[in-house]
Amino acid sequence: MVSKHTAPAMELWYDFGSNYSYLSIMRVEEAADRHGVAIVWKPFLLGPVFKALGWQGSPFLAQQEKLRYVWQDMLRQCEKYRLPWTRPSTFPRNGLLSSRVALLGADMPWIAEFNRQVMLHNFQRDRDINSEEEVGGILADMGLPAESLLKAAQSDHNKQRLREQTQEALDRGLFGAPTFLIGDAMFWGNDRLDDALLYAATRGNG
Amino acid sequence: MVSKHTAPAMELWYDFGSNYSYLSIMRVEEAADRHGVAIVWKPFLLGPVFKALGWQGSPFLAQQEKLRYVWQDMLRQCEKYRLPWTRPSTFPRNGLLSSRVALLGADMPWIAEFNRQVMLHNFQRDRDINSEEEVGGILADMGLPAESLLKAAQSDHNKQRLREQTQEALDRGLFGAPTFLIGDAMFWGNDRLDDALLYAATRGNG
Repeated sequence: MVSKHTAPAMELWYDFGSNYSYLSIMRVEEAADRHGVAIVWKPFLLGPVFKALGWQGSPFLAQQEKLRYVWQDMLRQCEKYRLPWTRPSTFPRNGLLSSRVALLGADMPWIAEFNRQVMLHNFQRDRDINSEEEVGGILADMGLPAESLLKAAQSDHNKQRLREQTQEALDRGLFGAPTFLIGDAMFWGNDRLDDALLYAATRGNG
Repeated sequence: MVSKHTAPAMELWYDFGSNYSYLSIMRVEEAADRHGVAIVWKPFLLGPVFKALGWQGSPFLAQQEKLRYVWQDMLRQCEKYRLPWTRPSTFPRNGLLSSRVALLGADMPWIAEFNRQVMLHNFQRDRDINSEEEVGGILADMGLPAESLLKAAQSDHNKQRLREQTQEALDRGLFGAPTFLIGDAMFWGNDRLDDALLYAATRGNG
């Protein structure tokens, strides 16, 4: 007889413009499998969060010294994780449309692949991630009905849901991305991915 | 015959008020030994650096949401590294006198132990790290001539050297602590300690 357990799960809060979210999105599935943890995908928008916190846009932009370092760090991090890397010609990129599609598909079997392709569009291919042409192209290349998905993603209902999800991020104390939540336990940054998964696997449902 | 090589070395820039510097100071010797890398101790003052960068004090203080997270993170980090932890009743603590002593002793055999004791004073014992009584007590407990060291640490010459070392931090692009430098390669934050040591061991003198 097996007791009835809820499988361990971890919420991954991410923004498609965030370079450290890129690192986590690309490696989270393998890592979560290893820990036996399910991923709850939580796309949201960092811009409104920074604004609500009274910050002047991305902390990286307000602090140029830090941004210079970030590009140095990303080169080495991508080498370490064997990920492609191109410094985006626009940073941070607006990922509003991509986020709306991701929210729409958060429980669909194609969400993880969609997330990866949008991130590669931004951080490998240096392409726009907010136009119907580009985001539709990603969906079509995945064999998905791009036109109807884009239409549903831009419905008033789905737009409102993304605003509510971003408000939820604020209400739960998020201030950056990626952020991993297991209940009230918050882990911030790609450097905490493994700690968060270990926590979810061992204490998340304790 | 053995070729003449310079031993790999890594500069560790730290501030005694910095909680993430605490983590690195406590574990760097074991980690550096493992990589065969020598540590060059670089105490400096973050306060003047933040001020020169136009930041309003510690980014943690300007961003209260982040500070709330930091305390959650420190609890777990100290558990992970098996380090003692008490949230300081004053944060960030002024470590001016401790830094002057550390600069004076940066090449002395007692520097690593002094660094650890000051950090434990701040982050385990919740004690002042800027008074002659407290800093002198640390030195005396280590069997060192506290009175003469405190006097030398507060000489005009040594005070000026600490100002110059802090200016060097700014000139080399530092914006936080701990920071690890191997030549021009910068690694920021305790999370990058192992990456920095690996870099120093394999490419630092390449």
